[in-house]
Amino acid sequence: MEKLVPKEPRGLVVVITGHGKGKTTTALGLAVRACGHGMRICIIQFMKGDLYSGERDGVKKMDCAIEMHATGKGFCGIQGNPYPYREHRQNAQDAAALAREKMASEDYDLIILDEVNNALHLKLVDLEQILSLIREKPPLVHLVLTGRDAHPAVIELADTVSEVVEIKHAYRKGIEPQPGIDY
Amino acid sequence: MEKLVPKEPRGLVVVITGHGKGKTTTALGLAVRACGHGMRICIIQFMKGDLYSGERDGVKKMDCAIEMHATGKGFCGIQGNPYPYREHRQNAQDAAALAREKMASEDYDLIILDEVNNALHLKLVDLEQILSLIREKPPLVHLVLTGRDAHPAVIELADTVSEVVEIKHAYRKGIEPQPGIDY
Repeated sequence: MEKLVPKEPRGLVVVITGHGKGKTTTALGLAVRACGHGMRICIIQFMKGDLYSGERDGVKKMDCAIEMHATGKGFCGIQGNPYPYREHRQNAQDAAALAREKMASEDYDLIILDEVNNALHLKLVDLEQILSLIREKPPLVHLVLTGRDAHPAVIELADTVSEVVEIKHAYRKGIEPQPGIDY
Repeated sequence: MEKLVPKEPRGLVVVITGHGKGKTTTALGLAVRACGHGMRICIIQFMKGDLYSGERDGVKKMDCAIEMHATGKGFCGIQGNPYPYREHRQNAQDAAALAREKMASEDYDLIILDEVNNALHLKLVDLEQILSLIREKPPLVHLVLTGRDAHPAVIELADTVSEVVEIKHAYRKGIEPQPGIDY
């Protein structure tokens, strides 16, 4: 089996955005791929945290250097979310500080900022904070930013950007979220 | 932490299509999520197989009931691919037979048919083969079909469909494929 080796190894900036299902999921898949290469992985979740999702335990079952930090408190602005804006903002700010610290440590080959695009869109973090994170990325570190409504300036700095578009979603047929797929 | 439990558990049919990066990756992420729920996972790759990608080892490092079968021989029709059509067709037919067998066994909670949409588009498998696979799915099994150019009849039968659209890709700037992201 042929194994590619880049002549010029470099860390990429990858943005996964859009309103369809599969952004966090894509980031988890990148973690599996990186794990296969023996890379060290750090996942920082900017907005989730109070609803169980299978990836919390799935990541623990991966035999590689992977850590996941859930700083958020659910989705800000979604009906029924009980936390005030300032609490979401503080959590996202903590996540941004953690991201900066982890990136500077050079202890990781892949850093995933999950839902950071929505955090920015909702002004829980500031554009300049995220742009400077991207600009200060060590050259060999892969940085992945997920979440809907990615900012054009973030897209501009990225190497690879995918938009996940919803064609259909089970919940529109009244199907409840199902474990293993939706959470 | 709140844990959802569906009143009506059901297996979903999920299609991940489009020309952007992140379809197989999404499927791998779903495997992580399912792994966290203790589900049993089977991944059948319809078209890959002769180029190393990190997920081969990444999946082996997941401490759960997961198996991956690579039946394909690279991408049919892509410049430089040395295999004749009939060999691609035979491989995809083997993959379809394996998928049918695995699904009938009821030994799995999540079955991923990776790149099956392209296999269908390239006539390596037939539409009726894939539609009957979907129709005969046991009610609680999740079935995920990835690959570009998903057939409208497959989309029609699916519960959740995402299209991954390319906004940017590093290779268009002349950046080589990088381990951990591209393979």
